[in-house]
Amino acid sequence: MNKLDQLCIVMVETSHPGNIGSAARAMKTMGIHDLRLVKPTRFNSPETRALASGADDILEQAKLLDSLPAALADCHYIIGSSARSERSLPWPQMTARTCGLRVNERLPEQKVAIVFGRERSGLSNEELEHCHALVHIPMAFDFFSLNIAAAVQIICYECMMASHSAPNQHEHPTPTLNEPLATAEAMENFFQHLETTMIEVRYLDPANPRLLMRRIRRLFGRITPTQSEVNILRGMLSAFQGRKFQHRSP
Amino acid sequence: MNKLDQLCIVMVETSHPGNIGSAARAMKTMGIHDLRLVKPTRFNSPETRALASGADDILEQAKLLDSLPAALADCHYIIGSSARSERSLPWPQMTARTCGLRVNERLPEQKVAIVFGRERSGLSNEELEHCHALVHIPMAFDFFSLNIAAAVQIICYECMMASHSAPNQHEHPTPTLNEPLATAEAMENFFQHLETTMIEVRYLDPANPRLLMRRIRRLFGRITPTQSEVNILRGMLSAFQGRKFQHRSP
Repeated sequence: MNKLDQLCIVMVETSHPGNIGSAARAMKTMGIHDLRLVKPTRFNSPETRALASGADDILEQAKLLDSLPAALADCHYIIGSSARSERSLPWPQMTARTCGLRVNERLPEQKVAIVFGRERSGLSNEELEHCHALVHIPMAFDFFSLNIAAAVQIICYECMMASHSAPNQHEHPTPTLNEPLATAEAMENFFQHLETTMIEVRYLDPANPRLLMRRIRRLFGRITPTQSEVNILRGMLSAFQGRKFQHRSP
Repeated sequence: MNKLDQLCIVMVETSHPGNIGSAARAMKTMGIHDLRLVKPTRFNSPETRALASGADDILEQAKLLDSLPAALADCHYIIGSSARSERSLPWPQMTARTCGLRVNERLPEQKVAIVFGRERSGLSNEELEHCHALVHIPMAFDFFSLNIAAAVQIICYECMMASHSAPNQHEHPTPTLNEPLATAEAMENFFQHLETTMIEVRYLDPANPRLLMRRIRRLFGRITPTQSEVNILRGMLSAFQGRKFQHRSP
């Protein structure tokens, strides 16, 4: 199995069908095949196929999804792409080159997603909440922007370069936990459970939940817990609710 | 003066006007401005300008030339791009990454050109004779090819990355939280609070608490929360206990 089979590219509400085709070709040149499309404006138009130019297999296997959480359900580590680095954003931020190295450290044990936002407006704050880290491509001008397919090309290129060379194979910046990480879906279920419990004890006002839940998501998002840790946390919540949580296999 | 002002991109007999526009945009994102076009099929069509998307200045200053020697007249060092590395070719061959480093060593004392051939057939042997070295972009599949604008994008990206003295200046591996982190003492108080609450709801057996508490310490230890995040968590615990937690200053 190729390590890069565990890496997927997620495109959110892409407007121009040609960009999807170009992104598919960019992915294929670098040996990355799992493309997920969240509510594209149009898909599989003649323009998409013309620009895919031989990457039709990627388009045929591409998954069409209704929401970002649905696209990320089976992923363990999620990286959002942003146009530039912003010190004010409360996420770990890295360049495309470092992103390649970090992705390579996690593959193939973890399933990694790199998420690209809309051509004009990128990812919303709510969408960023699903990400563990942000990646940006260094540029000469901060006020200018890369075409989305060009951004996919460079980031896929860096992931492929890192997977070929593995220069830091004796470093382990991310400690290996001998347990599978929780998937994005398991985390969503945990956040739902936590929110319900907090409402039950009136710690959270369901009429105005957003800021508190966002802070809590960010807090737990930094941990990237394992499935068995999520089971512990949910067991604790169920105990607070006065009932038992059925531990599920991941 | 910017070092990269001494680097030019030469495109030979490009067929699709859109590719010239995309290449101009790719160059501009990386701070490279000197574009030279040898006998393009069409140039400055609406498609060219649409895909240039803000890089009109590069198109306006682009030089139109009748021959490759004319395009290279003022250059000192010439690199031809090829689709793949071929041991049989009698030129020094390098990857895009090494190309960035080599170009950077020569700038700005020397004027360097990177030459891209036709979309389908690349550069002829006669054209290769004008080159001092060849560059190729490593790919997952030898039988597949990059779009020409994508190739220009990656090579310009590598030249820009190499010319940046501090390539990691835009990284923020640890996001700056504009809040003080919780002290070890505050964390101990939190763990005490959590343990008490878990015992109250009988999730934790005080006769044998060690393994569960150890796992929970490890889990929260990975977050290094801020004081205000600890306040949120303790407020939640107090709500579970049915009483209010007094937020304290750190």
